[in-house]
Amino acid sequence: MDATEFRKRGKEMVDYIADYIEKIEERQVYPDVEPGYLRALIPEFAPETPERFEDILKDVERIIMPGVTHWHSPYFFAYFPTANSFPALLGDMLSGGIGCIGFSWASSPACTELETVMLDWLGKMINLPPQFLAGKDGEGGGVIQGTASEATLVAMLAARTKAIRHIQLDNENLTQGEIIGRLVAYTSDQVSTLFPALLVPRMRWIFGNVLNFLKAAGAIKLFQRGERATNDLLGNDINHLECFPICHCAIGKPYRGYADSFNFNPHKWLLVNFDCSTMWVKKRLDLTCAFKIDPVYLKSHLCFILQHWQIPLGRRFRSLKMWFVFRMYGVSGLQEYIRKHVRLAHEFKDLVLQDDRFEICADVILGLVCFRLKGSNELNEVLLKNINDARKIHLVPCHLRGKFVLRFAICARTVESSHIQFAWKNITTIASVLLKTQKQSTD
Amino acid sequence: MDATEFRKRGKEMVDYIADYIEKIEERQVYPDVEPGYLRALIPEFAPETPERFEDILKDVERIIMPGVTHWHSPYFFAYFPTANSFPALLGDMLSGGIGCIGFSWASSPACTELETVMLDWLGKMINLPPQFLAGKDGEGGGVIQGTASEATLVAMLAARTKAIRHIQLDNENLTQGEIIGRLVAYTSDQVSTLFPALLVPRMRWIFGNVLNFLKAAGAIKLFQRGERATNDLLGNDINHLECFPICHCAIGKPYRGYADSFNFNPHKWLLVNFDCSTMWVKKRLDLTCAFKIDPVYLKSHLCFILQHWQIPLGRRFRSLKMWFVFRMYGVSGLQEYIRKHVRLAHEFKDLVLQDDRFEICADVILGLVCFRLKGSNELNEVLLKNINDARKIHLVPCHLRGKFVLRFAICARTVESSHIQFAWKNITTIASVLLKTQKQSTD
Repeated sequence: MDATEFRKRGKEMVDYIADYIEKIEERQVYPDVEPGYLRALIPEFAPETPERFEDILKDVERIIMPGVTHWHSPYFFAYFPTANSFPALLGDMLSGGIGCIGFSWASSPACTELETVMLDWLGKMINLPPQFLAGKDGEGGGVIQGTASEATLVAMLAARTKAIRHIQLDNENLTQGEIIGRLVAYTSDQVSTLFPALLVPRMRWIFGNVLNFLKAAGAIKLFQRGERATNDLLGNDINHLECFPICHCAIGKPYRGYADSFNFNPHKWLLVNFDCSTMWVKKRLDLTCAFKIDPVYLKSHLCFILQHWQIPLGRRFRSLKMWFVFRMYGVSGLQEYIRKHVRLAHEFKDLVLQDDRFEICADVILGLVCFRLKGSNELNEVLLKNINDARKIHLVPCHLRGKFVLRFAICARTVESSHIQFAWKNITTIASVLLKTQKQSTD
Repeated sequence: MDATEFRKRGKEMVDYIADYIEKIEERQVYPDVEPGYLRALIPEFAPETPERFEDILKDVERIIMPGVTHWHSPYFFAYFPTANSFPALLGDMLSGGIGCIGFSWASSPACTELETVMLDWLGKMINLPPQFLAGKDGEGGGVIQGTASEATLVAMLAARTKAIRHIQLDNENLTQGEIIGRLVAYTSDQVSTLFPALLVPRMRWIFGNVLNFLKAAGAIKLFQRGERATNDLLGNDINHLECFPICHCAIGKPYRGYADSFNFNPHKWLLVNFDCSTMWVKKRLDLTCAFKIDPVYLKSHLCFILQHWQIPLGRRFRSLKMWFVFRMYGVSGLQEYIRKHVRLAHEFKDLVLQDDRFEICADVILGLVCFRLKGSNELNEVLLKNINDARKIHLVPCHLRGKFVLRFAICARTVESSHIQFAWKNITTIASVLLKTQKQSTD
């Protein structure tokens, strides 16, 4: 395919994507396929000779789409929101077209520099303490990681390296291995990644909610900052639940009032498509020294070498999509978007509260409503199964204090009040049938 | 931005990318900017209100492009090739448009299933032993990791988990920490990642070339397989240099004739844009058990849960770009592409050999030529600096057995014989001036 054909096919793909998103409501939110469905539809071997683009695009509808869970359908209320905005798609296209690998400054200066500036922009938007910003001559700064798991691993590595060096100052005879065996890290029992345990074998799990964890870890001052920060960006709708990612910051620094690093995922709720997990550090040397000790590098304040901030060597030009999103939405557009989602969650909560067969299982603060039928876990498991089997909306469950709970997460960029009303009507209709059947069987 | 505007802007972006790639020769391959150039061109804060797309696209030329190192210029011979093909761009656009997060089968069945089948396609293309394939009921299978660093880390984690469990069978009293302190891993001194050392503190570095390392690690049978595999795909041009990534496979399994895992990067030389690092395992339970022990999951052969194969939880629909590339090039198209690059490297090597002021410093087998002026390291450092300062072509150096060496890597998809001839003329002209100046200063 040459550039001329790419002009044609690229434009067809733009229309295909626009059609997909414009008409996504018409697609069933959760697919009907069974495990292994796709293998039967695809040849066993790659073709020896080139195939035509038309045939591939036809196969997208025939083979791929029947197996897609449509995360951006306004009837998708499962898992968590994941970003998908048009400006981010455009930025990502450009990133692919430039196709540079920005591991060092010289390998593509714009890639390193735009990322550093975009992390400053975002850090200011969420009111991070100025020590976390790079500025012209700061000691801190931010980086885009692929995911929060990677950010956590990197933060843990930096904390471990620093702890080892500190301990070795007073205990020259201790080996690195001996010190690692004696390090203890604290984390919440609510984290979804086990990676900290790779680096520090002795983990202590703090049970209970995030706030308790942060108190236990002595990180409350960090937490307060996180809270204030999101408040400033998002209005007054935010509290500690959204600050969950800052747990990562506190690991390795228990009993100290301030975090050394901060991480959250714009690729969830901030309209920047996956992957874009932003991480800031107060002292970037803590991080880069964990990866490489290079005296020449240490002397350079100007050249960020982002490969020393992360696990991979290679890195895409991901800051372009942040730049496109921040400029095309503006801070006010981002605030409006988050506020709309929070309003819709409250609208759903109010519907639940008006039906005394149901109960709300956790405070509704942001975009998530945890609810259930008053009654047994089994009843709620059947309710969820019936809702998902009906394929009108899609939900996933969680367990809260031993109770099986349905999670209703406001996810899609295009979700409106009408979808919330439809979802609730769907849930209550299915619940009514279920309760009636159950009553009949017990009568 | 709504779908209507996205149709317009998306098509403009397609044209912008096509223009960029069609006319990339006209751009200076390496930029003139100094560290910190970009901050001065961008506001200190994100805009409060939305900006226009036209202004952003203008700023791409004004702010971004002056700082881009053009990896896809046919005058770029630095680092290594990185994939950038039109079919991959189209596949990636679609991946962004669908925007699903495929961590589990249910979170988007097509995402998991296409990836598994594409890894089987590619595994067959490179003639991997059938144990590495998933098939309908195999115990192996493949996964897309972001980079080889992540694949290495995951393979090391699986190997470590397996070793710990094995040792604990006979030594119930040993803790995990005690066992980790006694594990030893072997790796080549030529690897570019330090991550194995995170998991096994006692590393042994094998000095010398990859073949020696593989022999030392007892992995020679794996290596032979890798060699055969790439031969089959690529003709007879390939030998062990390209099999470097398989070092990863042997780590954790010294003195055993067969590798448990295999990893290489289609995002380098196989026209699938970054990120796409493919990794296969013979027993996927070795891998998934290292991440999660879930008896229900272990019973399921059908549902791959790819989050248990990797560090991140989230994952994009990256197999789409493999599917597009394999189908639009066909196996024959991929072979032709690799063979062209290898031919061009030999063309450059022959030019070097015809000039007795120069020497070739390593066998030329694939797409890389290591060469230098006969003479001191200082002389060659100045030569490289003068070449890069002239900005006509871009090269980076390496050190081989104490010698400062210039690396000439065939990189761009569009590079042709004329660019090789131009590059050599450029190098020899600069060398002649340098040698003349040097002679004058010593006369």
